[in-house]
Amino acid sequence: MSQLVISVPTQAEFDFLSHLDVEPVLWALDKPAPRQDLDMVVMPYIFDMSGMSYLSSMHPKLVQLANIGFDGVADHAPAGLTIANATTVHETATAELALGLMLAAQRDIPRMVRSQDHGTWDRFRARGLADCKVVIVGVGGVGTAIAERLRPFEVDIVRVASREREDEHGHVYATNQLPDLLPTADIVVLALPSSEATYHFADDAFFGLMPDDSLFVNVGRGKTADTEALIRHAGRIRAALDVVDPEPLPEDSPLWSNPAVLISPHLGGWAAAQYRRHNLLLKRQIEHLVAGEPPENVVFES
Amino acid sequence: MSQLVISVPTQAEFDFLSHLDVEPVLWALDKPAPRQDLDMVVMPYIFDMSGMSYLSSMHPKLVQLANIGFDGVADHAPAGLTIANATTVHETATAELALGLMLAAQRDIPRMVRSQDHGTWDRFRARGLADCKVVIVGVGGVGTAIAERLRPFEVDIVRVASREREDEHGHVYATNQLPDLLPTADIVVLALPSSEATYHFADDAFFGLMPDDSLFVNVGRGKTADTEALIRHAGRIRAALDVVDPEPLPEDSPLWSNPAVLISPHLGGWAAAQYRRHNLLLKRQIEHLVAGEPPENVVFES
Repeated sequence: MSQLVISVPTQAEFDFLSHLDVEPVLWALDKPAPRQDLDMVVMPYIFDMSGMSYLSSMHPKLVQLANIGFDGVADHAPAGLTIANATTVHETATAELALGLMLAAQRDIPRMVRSQDHGTWDRFRARGLADCKVVIVGVGGVGTAIAERLRPFEVDIVRVASREREDEHGHVYATNQLPDLLPTADIVVLALPSSEATYHFADDAFFGLMPDDSLFVNVGRGKTADTEALIRHAGRIRAALDVVDPEPLPEDSPLWSNPAVLISPHLGGWAAAQYRRHNLLLKRQIEHLVAGEPPENVVFES
Repeated sequence: MSQLVISVPTQAEFDFLSHLDVEPVLWALDKPAPRQDLDMVVMPYIFDMSGMSYLSSMHPKLVQLANIGFDGVADHAPAGLTIANATTVHETATAELALGLMLAAQRDIPRMVRSQDHGTWDRFRARGLADCKVVIVGVGGVGTAIAERLRPFEVDIVRVASREREDEHGHVYATNQLPDLLPTADIVVLALPSSEATYHFADDAFFGLMPDDSLFVNVGRGKTADTEALIRHAGRIRAALDVVDPEPLPEDSPLWSNPAVLISPHLGGWAAAQYRRHNLLLKRQIEHLVAGEPPENVVFES
């Protein structure tokens, strides 16, 4: 069997593939493909969907997305493609940031930073994470990775998904039970993908059910929370936001200067861990193609 | 058996004991005892050691310290006392802050806070915690609690104590192996008590062995690290410090304004979790005394 021909959008991925028994091609879908006989096309991390039209006359065995979310891809993908997402690549770094934001908010690390900038030895009693009830909405890869990391922190973890069920970690509540769960939460973490069903999932009623001084964390997608509603409740509740709607957060948003709000500019997956896990996924997909096995993470065939 | 008479230094502890079958007395050791027949004396969290002289003519069954560290207590305790420390009270909050500082430093939450204060949507690629080699020096209660919380973060945990051994979590290296371990570390966490043996444990040679851009975290005691040596290395290495020497950190210390340094003003144990666990310890000690059992956490008898 001849070597697989695989296009990748960055030099770093090209260099990684050069160590494997494949023929790498540098192509970021920003212009027509340099050759038509690609066996696998790896998409850029953030890309202009219109670039997918270059694939219309081609027959790759696999189109590999660099993201977990794939909203919009179906609308732009030409027919006949097998498309996989990047499950296993981003969960680690995103869940890690979720814990970082929770701990920062509960121990008030922003206050430490600002006191340090004033040269002030400012001691205070923090809320802390231990003994908190943490409601995680979304039990996909990111929600599951958050729960795994939270478990040793002596917290009460409540997992919520669209449908009530038991899994290997215990009970999963249904979203229609949130009116009973939210009023007892110390921390609510949203880890939902963007879709019509999740649009403004956290709305005025949702925030209104959260207790005073409780913490809202969003590491899913900005559109899953109603920013205007959050602005009305921020201060009474606290917030740590890796995603907002719209992004970037507008310059005149009152969230910037609200002391109850910590803003992380959509950095969830953006840590060194992502690159290593991306490469490991490419390597496994190549092994699957060589072995004639179905690839991992296929999200749809267009 | 008559009710135990127990002195406590704060109204909150008094109120807690009022719900148990004991007779609480409010006494902070800042003046002679209001009565001599105390069965148990609970010490203030931070206190003037000279107050221990008030215990010289008394015969409590137990003196309960509010801290884990007890350096200096032996020098001031009158003869004949059984003294317990606060193991189980502070580990949770201290280990939680250690993780908070590590995640804040590895994901650069201070940069997020400062960008937020400028209203800037400042995206950057963070180092991250996953895939890091984390060397934890000290496997007492705090070091063990840090390792437990780190385990799900996909890191390589290396534990170091005075003597090499195996325990239920695997291998523990000896401190004399640090010259081999430090050059391979991404993060080094010091969780040591203060003693003559640990004074300036992290010295110029120690910091010199840490790789460029690696992170030094101290959540033990300030005197276990040589501040002047750290000042020389800070910038080449990064640091997140909950304890320093001296405390408060002097106003003119260059550590305040070093962008590679995150300062937490000795807040390790100071979170809500501490109060609940303190009360639970008092309750268990009372149960031990009532049952005629030896108390927990006895660190010495004077």
